[in-house]
Amino acid sequence: MQNFMTIRTDLAIEAREMVTNHVSHDVSGVDVVTSKDEDVLITRVNITNQAAEDALGKPIGKYITIEAQGLKYNDADLHEKIAEFLAEELNGLIKISSTATVLVVGLGNRNITPDALGPKTIEKLVVTRHLKDMLLDDVKDHMRLVCAIEPGVLGITGMETAEIIQGIVTKIKPDMVIAIDALAAAASHRVNTTIQLANTGIHPGSGVDNKRFGLNQATLGVPVIAIGVPTVVHASTIAMDTIHALKEHASFARYFKSMETLSANECQTIVRQVLPETLGNLMVTPKEIDQIITDISTVVAKGINQALHEKIDYENIHTCIKYI
Amino acid sequence: MQNFMTIRTDLAIEAREMVTNHVSHDVSGVDVVTSKDEDVLITRVNITNQAAEDALGKPIGKYITIEAQGLKYNDADLHEKIAEFLAEELNGLIKISSTATVLVVGLGNRNITPDALGPKTIEKLVVTRHLKDMLLDDVKDHMRLVCAIEPGVLGITGMETAEIIQGIVTKIKPDMVIAIDALAAAASHRVNTTIQLANTGIHPGSGVDNKRFGLNQATLGVPVIAIGVPTVVHASTIAMDTIHALKEHASFARYFKSMETLSANECQTIVRQVLPETLGNLMVTPKEIDQIITDISTVVAKGINQALHEKIDYENIHTCIKYI
Amino acid sequence: MQNFMTIRTDLAIEAREMVTNHVSHDVSGVDVVTSKDEDVLITRVNITNQAAEDALGKPIGKYITIEAQGLKYNDADLHEKIAEFLAEELNGLIKISSTATVLVVGLGNRNITPDALGPKTIEKLVVTRHLKDMLLDDVKDHMRLVCAIEPGVLGITGMETAEIIQGIVTKIKPDMVIAIDALAAAASHRVNTTIQLANTGIHPGSGVDNKRFGLNQATLGVPVIAIGVPTVVHASTIAMDTIHALKEHASFARYFKSMETLSANECQTIVRQVLPETLGNLMVTPKEIDQIITDISTVVAKGINQALHEKIDYENIHTCIKYI
Amino acid sequence: MQNFMTIRTDLAIEAREMVTNHVSHDVSGVDVVTSKDEDVLITRVNITNQAAEDALGKPIGKYITIEAQGLKYNDADLHEKIAEFLAEELNGLIKISSTATVLVVGLGNRNITPDALGPKTIEKLVVTRHLKDMLLDDVKDHMRLVCAIEPGVLGITGMETAEIIQGIVTKIKPDMVIAIDALAAAASHRVNTTIQLANTGIHPGSGVDNKRFGLNQATLGVPVIAIGVPTVVHASTIAMDTIHALKEHASFARYFKSMETLSANECQTIVRQVLPETLGNLMVTPKEIDQIITDISTVVAKGINQALHEKIDYENIHTCIKYI
Repeated sequence: MQNFMTIRTDLAIEAREMVTNHVSHDVSGVDVVTSKDEDVLITRVNITNQAAEDALGKPIGKYITIEAQGLKYNDADLHEKIAEFLAEELNGLIKISSTATVLVVGLGNRNITPDALGPKTIEKLVVTRHLKDMLLDDVKDHMRLVCAIEPGVLGITGMETAEIIQGIVTKIKPDMVIAIDALAAAASHRVNTTIQLANTGIHPGSGVDNKRFGLNQATLGVPVIAIGVPTVVHASTIAMDTIHALKEHASFARYFKSMETLSANECQTIVRQVLPETLGNLMVTPKEIDQIITDISTVVAKGINQALHEKIDYENIHTCIKYI
Repeated sequence: MQNFMTIRTDLAIEAREMVTNHVSHDVSGVDVVTSKDEDVLITRVNITNQAAEDALGKPIGKYITIEAQGLKYNDADLHEKIAEFLAEELNGLIKISSTATVLVVGLGNRNITPDALGPKTIEKLVVTRHLKDMLLDDVKDHMRLVCAIEPGVLGITGMETAEIIQGIVTKIKPDMVIAIDALAAAASHRVNTTIQLANTGIHPGSGVDNKRFGLNQATLGVPVIAIGVPTVVHASTIAMDTIHALKEHASFARYFKSMETLSANECQTIVRQVLPETLGNLMVTPKEIDQIITDISTVVAKGINQALHEKIDYENIHTCIKYI
Repeated sequence: MQNFMTIRTDLAIEAREMVTNHVSHDVSGVDVVTSKDEDVLITRVNITNQAAEDALGKPIGKYITIEAQGLKYNDADLHEKIAEFLAEELNGLIKISSTATVLVVGLGNRNITPDALGPKTIEKLVVTRHLKDMLLDDVKDHMRLVCAIEPGVLGITGMETAEIIQGIVTKIKPDMVIAIDALAAAASHRVNTTIQLANTGIHPGSGVDNKRFGLNQATLGVPVIAIGVPTVVHASTIAMDTIHALKEHASFARYFKSMETLSANECQTIVRQVLPETLGNLMVTPKEIDQIITDISTVVAKGINQALHEKIDYENIHTCIKYI
Repeated sequence: MQNFMTIRTDLAIEAREMVTNHVSHDVSGVDVVTSKDEDVLITRVNITNQAAEDALGKPIGKYITIEAQGLKYNDADLHEKIAEFLAEELNGLIKISSTATVLVVGLGNRNITPDALGPKTIEKLVVTRHLKDMLLDDVKDHMRLVCAIEPGVLGITGMETAEIIQGIVTKIKPDMVIAIDALAAAASHRVNTTIQLANTGIHPGSGVDNKRFGLNQATLGVPVIAIGVPTVVHASTIAMDTIHALKEHASFARYFKSMETLSANECQTIVRQVLPETLGNLMVTPKEIDQIITDISTVVAKGINQALHEKIDYENIHTCIKYI
């Protein structure tokens, strides 16, 4: 079974599929509830004990995926609906007072298109923390104080993202953190079609860039909600998928029953032949990735705005301010 | 042999490799000369008769590839050297008077990063056609009149690029056209490491976008030099490469001698399972593609500037002008 | 009176104000009709004879301005309304069959933010000319075939925009041309608040860049509608306005009755002292110009899309196509 | 004298000019030393006591301006020279060990072109702090550990820049901070021609955006070097300059000796008539500002890289690293 796990995934739903595809029964300690309409499938995975954490390689906690093939198309009505679902699910995960301070962190590198989801989302948030003293009294009493940061990436800042966020959290003292990140998917059909929310934060090794740090309650001292969207698959995933498809192909199976003898190591060797390490980190994206990232960052920002701000939005924010 | 050719390539050098890998002797009608130094390999392929044209799927003509692994790295000295090689090879292909008018066409979509090579190169050219009346006499007499256009892509203009360029050529009457295009490579190791020049122009079905049109002497009435750089491989190429690697893998061959029974059709079926057509056009690029396209477009523009302008460059162009 | 006209303007409405501010009666040959609601003022200026053309410095023809202070703010509802007004007014100017071919030209330099209005509008148009053969019959019979081009600017292409467009028009044979351009305003309060439509096309000396060419029925052989938005004022306009304000200032007038002795030449001298020509072309823009150009180009594109396409838009275009 | 000071300036050299233009003698407590070659003028202003601080409105400290008209042109050789001067002057201001940790802060809004100088500079720095454990021993012992942050602006983050930087400084504990900022000039001829260094840090009310916070030894607890480049003038500065030019204009003075009666208040009224506050914050920039900011940010980054790193640069950094 081991070799199936060599395809690392940031999505709990994929981790669970990988496991359940290869064990004869459901994993105990993993509760799964789904709901769907014609366009959108929502799956809530609850990892409740250590055994399940070990089996899936995901910490104990709640993971929600919102899946819609239409997320990657320019479909305004569907995007609006997905943003509303995101807001609802986010509110389901947030147990936080109506006047709390929330820091939203946009992870990733804005100069690498599929990694720019976090930075692009940050730009579209309704931040309010700096308006506190200018807000009308009846608004102020039930308004969350939202602030946001794009910390940049290690190669440009020379600082671990966790160091930067720890520094800011110490100073700003938010009640919670929301971290937005572009992910690598384990299956190409999930690229730009899935939004994952998790109340477990960000853990080392995740994200397009395979982060070395964690952003979670343990490192920051406050609850951290992670919102992730798979925007790439690694080229090696395509190669590995092809090997698996080949192994399961009928004409193949017909001739060569003993295919299971192809070990994980041999698979690696073949992938390395197709994609030598010297080529660097090859990513697979749709051609239209620039437009898609613009669109999905808008969906994520709208979802967060709706979840955090009941009474204000971009359009009417000026009606809530005392002067200027 | 047929199924090997299903991996279409825009590079004559790859077409030749595919053919010669699978025939026991060199193809007649294909002359190949190479030269190299420690960093750069230059291969000049001359397709001289119809049989060779048919075998390689490339029109009769001259094809030059400049290959350097360092092209994709931020290495200023090597880039300078490659630009000089490009200028030399371009001058070898150009039989054109020193006062000729040259139209440079930057093909591709600037909003899709790996397809933006043409548009980004255009911006860095030293255009001179509009300066004609302002140039000092001794400069004017040996200066090429360079002009440039970024025609956009069919989905945004609603016009075939060939229509746009034909219209402009009719009006401007250039002595020759240079067309710059981002290509799809057949092998991932050639992505962003190879520049191809050809005196045959652009033919339908080439480029990242699989163009429906041709830009060549037949369609434009003047000689057309094509400069192409492979900036992506299609995800399906990775999958196909994996199948081929698997077929040649030792432990595989050991067990399953009859692998050749896996037909081209069966390969297609497997690739379609991994990459369903509904996913759209998935491209494989290095993570740093934005920076790489910026760098390579600079190399290509420098090469063209050096080839076309003996006496002027960006730095000293103001010394050639009579008055503003 | 002459010196007031040294402030050149691309807006017929400003030309008329300048003239009528300084003559005691209305200019004959200039019909003006206005309509307004709480947010938007529409002024239709009809220049009907040569005398009026000479007085206003604008060719005989129809000029419509849509003015709304809110155009420059991020106000989705108002922008929707302005787009509808634009579509209506454009339809009033267009006498053209329901199956005509229309070429839309986006003038300006996309690398200079306030000059990028034309290029940014082009990207958001619904182009249809290339879909002709794929459209369902009942759609095809009443659909305009829209195509679009961003010709670039002289300094980058080495070709006059008029040459490029003439070449394309000869090839494509559109029934009409719509040209979109960023303008310089004569008054800072009109920056990013006004859209002008004119059935006279583009004339030399207009636009942010003071074009040397014309795009009009005389140069292209088909009707040309110009759509212009003032996005900058020249710094010299601010200086000149200040001199005029000073001359009319009460405490000034009180002391110095003979102020009219300050000649146009002396004004020029003062402006040149404040803004020496060596500083180059200084433009005045709001700080938020990047966002504003994005927003207004969306409004203009929506207006054109609505005017040209009765039955299709971005959202439902796929329902009109036979097969991919 | 007061009304002359209503034109606020971020440049000590302009503050001094304003003062010395209107007092008959040099201000005591202000030492000025200049040096120049054919292209570049360097002025070192040393404000040494409280009286001088009050007179100039600039804190006690050292201010160096590097002025070159050619800074705004695309002149590679001159830019190289200016970068070297910047490195020298920066080294003159820095008393800091060869293994110190330096945090560079890129102030400003990357989405507002003339305010993007800081963010654009940050991207081009050689950061080294994260490489510490990978560096060869002989390099490590004399290498500064550089890190960098682009904190964003209040309207997007909801946090004062000072809060963000204080948080990071507390965590990272740098030995000094360098803050890079785009400034507003008091005179249009200084736009994009001047680099100012100061060992006094950033004070409230400075910068294109009139910051509300300070970044200096008092707020951060470590020395702060400010590097500023004026990239805009406010439109009101143009208007005010025009009034002053008019007052000093010969034909004017001839007729109206009592011009001094035009008070600061009356000037304000006139400026407000030309530029009503409802127009918002109008900035004056050259048309080519996008390219200019790209170029100047490269000059500033090179200067800082040279000053901080004796032994490494972009080209040879890989020779200093142990592995990976």
